[in-house]
Amino acid sequence: MLLSKSFIPILKDNPSEAKIKSHQLMLRVGMIKQASAGIYSWLPLGFKIMKKIEDIVRQEQNKIGAQEILMPTIQSSEIWKESGRYDDYGEEMLRIKDRQNREMLYGPTNEEQVTEIFRSSFKSYKSLPQLLYHIQWKFRDEIRPRFGIMRGREFYMKDAYSFDVTDEDAFYSYNKFFLSYLRTFKRLSLTAIPMAADTGPIGGNLSHEFIILADTGESKIFTDKRVFDLNSEGTKLEKSSLEQLRTKYEQYYSVTDEKFNNDEFEKMVTEENRLITKGIEVGHIFYFGDKYSKAMSAAVDLPGGKKDFVKMGSYGIGVSRLVGAIIEAKYDDKNEIMKWPLSVAPYDVALIPMINKNDTSALEKANNINNELIKHKIDVIIDDTDENFSSKIKKMNLIGAPYQIIIGKKSDGDLLEFNETGGDTQNLSLDKIIEIITKQKVTN
Amino acid sequence: MLLSKSFIPILKDNPSEAKIKSHQLMLRVGMIKQASAGIYSWLPLGFKIMKKIEDIVRQEQNKIGAQEILMPTIQSSEIWKESGRYDDYGEEMLRIKDRQNREMLYGPTNEEQVTEIFRSSFKSYKSLPQLLYHIQWKFRDEIRPRFGIMRGREFYMKDAYSFDVTDEDAFYSYNKFFLSYLRTFKRLSLTAIPMAADTGPIGGNLSHEFIILADTGESKIFTDKRVFDLNSEGTKLEKSSLEQLRTKYEQYYSVTDEKFNNDEFEKMVTEENRLITKGIEVGHIFYFGDKYSKAMSAAVDLPGGKKDFVKMGSYGIGVSRLVGAIIEAKYDDKNEIMKWPLSVAPYDVALIPMINKNDTSALEKANNINNELIKHKIDVIIDDTDENFSSKIKKMNLIGAPYQIIIGKKSDGDLLEFNETGGDTQNLSLDKIIEIITKQKVTN
Repeated sequence: MLLSKSFIPILKDNPSEAKIKSHQLMLRVGMIKQASAGIYSWLPLGFKIMKKIEDIVRQEQNKIGAQEILMPTIQSSEIWKESGRYDDYGEEMLRIKDRQNREMLYGPTNEEQVTEIFRSSFKSYKSLPQLLYHIQWKFRDEIRPRFGIMRGREFYMKDAYSFDVTDEDAFYSYNKFFLSYLRTFKRLSLTAIPMAADTGPIGGNLSHEFIILADTGESKIFTDKRVFDLNSEGTKLEKSSLEQLRTKYEQYYSVTDEKFNNDEFEKMVTEENRLITKGIEVGHIFYFGDKYSKAMSAAVDLPGGKKDFVKMGSYGIGVSRLVGAIIEAKYDDKNEIMKWPLSVAPYDVALIPMINKNDTSALEKANNINNELIKHKIDVIIDDTDENFSSKIKKMNLIGAPYQIIIGKKSDGDLLEFNETGGDTQNLSLDKIIEIITKQKVTN
Repeated sequence: MLLSKSFIPILKDNPSEAKIKSHQLMLRVGMIKQASAGIYSWLPLGFKIMKKIEDIVRQEQNKIGAQEILMPTIQSSEIWKESGRYDDYGEEMLRIKDRQNREMLYGPTNEEQVTEIFRSSFKSYKSLPQLLYHIQWKFRDEIRPRFGIMRGREFYMKDAYSFDVTDEDAFYSYNKFFLSYLRTFKRLSLTAIPMAADTGPIGGNLSHEFIILADTGESKIFTDKRVFDLNSEGTKLEKSSLEQLRTKYEQYYSVTDEKFNNDEFEKMVTEENRLITKGIEVGHIFYFGDKYSKAMSAAVDLPGGKKDFVKMGSYGIGVSRLVGAIIEAKYDDKNEIMKWPLSVAPYDVALIPMINKNDTSALEKANNINNELIKHKIDVIIDDTDENFSSKIKKMNLIGAPYQIIIGKKSDGDLLEFNETGGDTQNLSLDKIIEIITKQKVTN
């Protein structure tokens, strides 16, 4: 892709309205454009990254046997009246009257809708477990939308729901998502820690927030540092292996402020392991038993002839929010260098030829290199403008392809100037560069 | 995928509320479920097909150099007041007030929004042409939603917009989409004919509807039969080649009833070539010049220092509607046989083992065949239920994988009973079957 043909409207300076670095970068490099308060259009660069995140989220849902559906954005108020949440939900719910004066709403979440689908389709325990998910736009009419897409009003989420007959089965489903989330965030090159979270007014049961560390985060967290050394490697999609995984994480104190208890913290964590900091929530898993199935009569036949309400859990990942979360985690705003994880990078490599009016040989060389990289499925952006070197580098450091190849005077012969974005330059052959990038792509 | 694990809730009989065959099949085989009037949830089978259609639409947009963006579903009324359409649009526009009492709306279309994006990003003729598209949910508050997703309220569309400096350039852009649409519908195995359409109150310019023949269609059409023999093969993405393509199609009379003129029809088409029938609109391309750019001040610098409003066109494809349109075109409702085009089929092959409680050897055989097919990237659904042969075939004929393999008593030795769905059975080796399917997949 030639930069001159791409719709990447880069601003010279940081936009003054943006307070956190993800919002700054996203406006600066033309990833998004505000449409109205808390509502954004996604321009090609931002869109491409969000789609790659969405694909990884989808693949990891499919791997645990969840099936994808798609519920509409506009819901009827009827099902919300059945569950009892229509009046409770408050002003964050965008309420709508259609031309027939029917009460509708823009879904802020989908427990009611999915329960309605479930109860009309499944009648027997034999069909369980069911894990259903969808990836769809949601709307929450925040009173003070801020921080760009991190706390917008219209946002893109993956929501999954599990249906089981017993608590034990339901925990097995819950743990599948626990594993799936660790794997998803790892592929996004994020260290997301599952933290015991408050179950809120629903009460009782079980809940984890997946949180990445960031100074700009809105969640205060209290953890044992050793939790950062854990990972999900070797875990199998089996009941006992999944239980071990959760036990492994739960041995270390790790909570958000809603669940924080100072006595417990000091008792369970030695001083040198205590970490009190801020984080961004990127996922939330939640077990709520028969709260909705009971209110909405979603029951199945059990063996022996009895009926019982199904036990449900819900599992969310903020897909659009993750774009911002990755920036918060990876963007070096002092030096204005973004290096996207290869798994979601808008381009794998930036080709930066030095062009002036009398000499376009570097651009020709860049085109030839591009053709070679395409053959190896390496996605390239070529800066074909005739700006000077430093402004080219500045732009490409913001766009954030993880690798750069500079084609200038030093690039005589077969060796090319190659660097990881923000890193030191090496002179390498094209073959060697292809080998390095391909190897990295495979591990992602 | 095992049928017993799939969420494909099949009904025994046709649902009485459905009047046309796409609506019947989609409810019958559990592709969709109504959420409220004209609003549907997509269940896994329907979702999978819609996603495949979306991917083909996307690929063909990218091939002509269009760049993908994503505009939000909820728009501000401000831009609609600028264009003058806020009052004109009438009750089909779903109007919303947010908690701050701001007037918002659920986008029924996106000319205003994309013009706003354009004018804030592009200042010079040097950046043109620009072709931008997005694939997003839209809402039209139909007074009488009907025919399932064919005339629903919330629906999924690809909308593209072109921006040029002169009419001549704009026609070039228009013709790129003309080609792109012919290619898209061909890959969906649909014969869609571009028909001169009314430009409506906007007046003047140029418009084609792409229409497929169907008795249940809402558009009345008048055409010269010979137009059905044309195709876009050999057309290049160059100005003159694209012009020739349009001339080739426009030589034959082919209009919807809004443009119909009986004298012209009888003069231009000999009696034996006249065809008066019904069709379904699956795409619409439209040139409207500076209608929106003028109203919304979207101008660029021209060479020489003057400024001018950009010339725009819009190009729509109904992605969710295409699911229904393909069913209308392909479903044999008398014999209850659906055969999806391989390019969008939910599964390539249905494996139908004959199972009874004492003998599961056919199921084992099916699993082995499945493993072999997976290696060749052939996607399979296995009917692992112990129902009888005729009800298994009945179900699979509705699900519509284009090929079936029956594993029963006749499948002794190395030969398998193989047929195209609805067609005659042949006894073939697995290797031969793989060869047949793979060959078909490549040509799609």
